[in-house]
Amino acid sequence: MELLEREIEKKGKVLPGNILKVGSFLNQQMDAEFVSKLAKEIYNHFKDKNINKILTVEASGIAFAILVAKEFKCKMVFAKKSQALNADGSLYQARCESFTRKTVNNITLPKEYLDKDDVVLIVDDFLAVGNAITALREIISQSGATLAGVTTIVEKGFQKGGDKLREEGIDLLSLAIVDKMEDGKITFRKN
Amino acid sequence: MELLEREIEKKGKVLPGNILKVGSFLNQQMDAEFVSKLAKEIYNHFKDKNINKILTVEASGIAFAILVAKEFKCKMVFAKKSQALNADGSLYQARCESFTRKTVNNITLPKEYLDKDDVVLIVDDFLAVGNAITALREIISQSGATLAGVTTIVEKGFQKGGDKLREEGIDLLSLAIVDKMEDGKITFRKN
Repeated sequence: MELLEREIEKKGKVLPGNILKVGSFLNQQMDAEFVSKLAKEIYNHFKDKNINKILTVEASGIAFAILVAKEFKCKMVFAKKSQALNADGSLYQARCESFTRKTVNNITLPKEYLDKDDVVLIVDDFLAVGNAITALREIISQSGATLAGVTTIVEKGFQKGGDKLREEGIDLLSLAIVDKMEDGKITFRKN
Repeated sequence: MELLEREIEKKGKVLPGNILKVGSFLNQQMDAEFVSKLAKEIYNHFKDKNINKILTVEASGIAFAILVAKEFKCKMVFAKKSQALNADGSLYQARCESFTRKTVNNITLPKEYLDKDDVVLIVDDFLAVGNAITALREIISQSGATLAGVTTIVEKGFQKGGDKLREEGIDLLSLAIVDKMEDGKITFRKN
């Protein structure tokens, strides 16, 4: 998406270790008008799939997810990160490794928020190796709901999580795919 | 707000210890259309105050805050919860006690996201004793920005945080004020 790529070039910062910082407009600070335009693009791509629920994981995916849910006029649910496993049976739960922080969390969702009648779009702000998406898919699988597709704002193409989803035949829409970051210069994948 | 009070009566659950559970429609699961109506109400109340930034704290306030920011066509920023104090001077930070969990966190915000030219509306989903609001006000004070007002979806009137803000002359809009919860019955404050 041209608009997003220009914004990343203008405001994103490439830090050592292939870290792309876009917190000033896509994460801890977010321009509601700009991100609403991204959400409309998502809606146009997935609008014929009968999606009735948007699923994300706290915290930074929430703002984008609710704006996407607004386009679909549907509900947004987010999985919580939790240290401990919950044993009372009221939650779906899945292991989720953090690639950047080298930690393992569980993510959880009350069972009452997702069931076999739901058609779900997974929304997250970033996709790298894809561990959060894998954990969210595990939760969908436990619930018996249908996965309609996956969408992210920025995919780091060189970390291959997105390509693996495409090889599986999953309908993945990433609004910008960064294939290379070198000397502060960002190369986007051509459509 | 009539619409919200009816929804709380219909879907909210009162748990032991004066806990009001509204996670099924206002927190971990959120109906984007319904919450957008709440956000419009906020906009109508504060629209003449030249607000250019919405400030909240992660995680559950974020979804409501970005929908409010969308009404104001402005930016949303959220403070992060953090265990440790950060010493490099790049962050505003304030202590925040959790009344429910009896823990103390620091909340932080990069200095680049808030400065003296900003006119800020603090948005959060819940207001009880008001500790999160106090910490967010401390961050605004450090930045030199102007506080235009405070807004929450549900205020627990009996925990007095809201009344203290009103006594200070702060423009506080709570969309529903719960004055009593007894035997599962909720009493709302009359306007």
